[in-house]
Amino acid sequence: MSSELRNLNEVTVRAPATVANVACGFDCLGFALETPFDEITLRRVDRPGIRIEHLDGFGLPTDPARNVVGTVLGSVIRAAGGDLGFEAVVTKHIKPGSGVGSSAASASAAAVAANELLGSPFSRPELVEFARDGEFTACGARIADNVSASIFGGFTLVRTTEPTADVIALEFPELHATVLHPQIEIKTADARALLRNEIPLPTAVRQWGNVGALVAGLARGDYGLIGRALEDFVAEPYRKVLIPGFDDLKSASLRAGALGGGISGSGPSVFMLSANGSAARAVESAMDRVYSGSGIDYNIYVSPVSRTGAATFR
Amino acid sequence: MSSELRNLNEVTVRAPATVANVACGFDCLGFALETPFDEITLRRVDRPGIRIEHLDGFGLPTDPARNVVGTVLGSVIRAAGGDLGFEAVVTKHIKPGSGVGSSAASASAAAVAANELLGSPFSRPELVEFARDGEFTACGARIADNVSASIFGGFTLVRTTEPTADVIALEFPELHATVLHPQIEIKTADARALLRNEIPLPTAVRQWGNVGALVAGLARGDYGLIGRALEDFVAEPYRKVLIPGFDDLKSASLRAGALGGGISGSGPSVFMLSANGSAARAVESAMDRVYSGSGIDYNIYVSPVSRTGAATFR
Repeated sequence: MSSELRNLNEVTVRAPATVANVACGFDCLGFALETPFDEITLRRVDRPGIRIEHLDGFGLPTDPARNVVGTVLGSVIRAAGGDLGFEAVVTKHIKPGSGVGSSAASASAAAVAANELLGSPFSRPELVEFARDGEFTACGARIADNVSASIFGGFTLVRTTEPTADVIALEFPELHATVLHPQIEIKTADARALLRNEIPLPTAVRQWGNVGALVAGLARGDYGLIGRALEDFVAEPYRKVLIPGFDDLKSASLRAGALGGGISGSGPSVFMLSANGSAARAVESAMDRVYSGSGIDYNIYVSPVSRTGAATFR
Repeated sequence: MSSELRNLNEVTVRAPATVANVACGFDCLGFALETPFDEITLRRVDRPGIRIEHLDGFGLPTDPARNVVGTVLGSVIRAAGGDLGFEAVVTKHIKPGSGVGSSAASASAAAVAANELLGSPFSRPELVEFARDGEFTACGARIADNVSASIFGGFTLVRTTEPTADVIALEFPELHATVLHPQIEIKTADARALLRNEIPLPTAVRQWGNVGALVAGLARGDYGLIGRALEDFVAEPYRKVLIPGFDDLKSASLRAGALGGGISGSGPSVFMLSANGSAARAVESAMDRVYSGSGIDYNIYVSPVSRTGAATFR
């Protein structure tokens, strides 16, 4: 009984890192990794309001109004209509600014944890909207692609964000990601500024031809088609200059057996997709060889594309 | 034995009308109808060269260099490397300029018929390239979307046309099309001139979000998703002014039960998709009510989306 009571009042949720854009799917496609993830232990308390503690060393603000988790909990409290109290202990494993959805993972974990403690009154699309409020705190825009992948897991397509995100969980075969995170800073605003506001119609046609082809390739498990569709004519040609050695990373990865890849989100991380774990590890070695002499600190993650999104850990 | 010989020397092929663009999929998506279709009876003859006779009354040129069928047969002969002779008798049932792939149907029929007579040395992707040469004769561009749908049948996605068309035959559920053809002339060049050469990035994102969603909806037979994805932000807003009553046709069709629709190709035909035959016929009645007092001559076709493309008829 005391253990049951504790379960009702406290929950720990892990929410995964995510790769947004996925080459051709600028601002609409994303997928979830198994690792790394952010973790939040959330407790219902009698005293109304939100208190946040960070166990990680990233120096993020703990003022709820300026904290991603605080923003999301605030949105949940407003929607639930109660005078609720939450205490959150956050352990981020995903470095902010890495381009694999660090803020999205914290936001998604907060939304899922709060929903769990309240007896699951909200649907996953509603949780996505709460988590998007956290993205607004992190970057000034209610970006939907990372939080959708982190909450739903797997491969997701955000068909539109108007008036709310229409998230489609795509069918997909076994896939493994290799993600290299160069420890350099790229501000999302700078990455955005590099993009053209208008794109030539023929370029747009090639891009949506690839989006359709990627969705079809994922649905039928056609690895060749997936590989052909992983092209980006909209962001990669302009943004890759921000990532030292991008072309070498890509060509070495393809030679090592990757299906394809590109820039993760707005960078600086670079992702590659492979059909199996051994290919993903061969890609890891290839990326490592390209970066080992670069003088830039880096991490490489190798992870299956996760079929589960943010979920209770214990 | 004599009947076998005749089979080797003569073949009749029917190739279906097609709807290109399919709302969101400008220049890459298409689907095939069962009716109407163009029919070609092709005969191998000893005398080298191409002779063409039209049994329809459209007044098309019969000079092989200026005729769609002639162009395609010329491309096949060059690829086959022989000094071959063909006689073609063409019966077009699809009115040129209707926006449902009239030239594409003739081109596809010619490519499939010639391949059949030669013992099928060419793959379907190769036949698409021959048929694209016919499109060049018809409209000055090697358009791929109509011929791909007419040759492959069903729903097709042309991922790219460079260097050759990468055609993906999509999975799709039972679907029925209602197509209204107003007997007005829209030149493809005029329809093209209305389009913007550049499109705003946010508009492009909405368009490829819908392309991905439509492919996903087709793959899983999710009619609601198919309907939501049938939006066009690129061509319809500009081209619909060329089609009298377009908005009324669309709203009446949706009220009658259509999933969605838009302009077929570059117009003037308007297509709607429905989940079953009775809905497609209800849409036909709704379209008929909109147009019956318009003073414009029109035809309405109701047809399942065909699962077979251009094929031998007898």
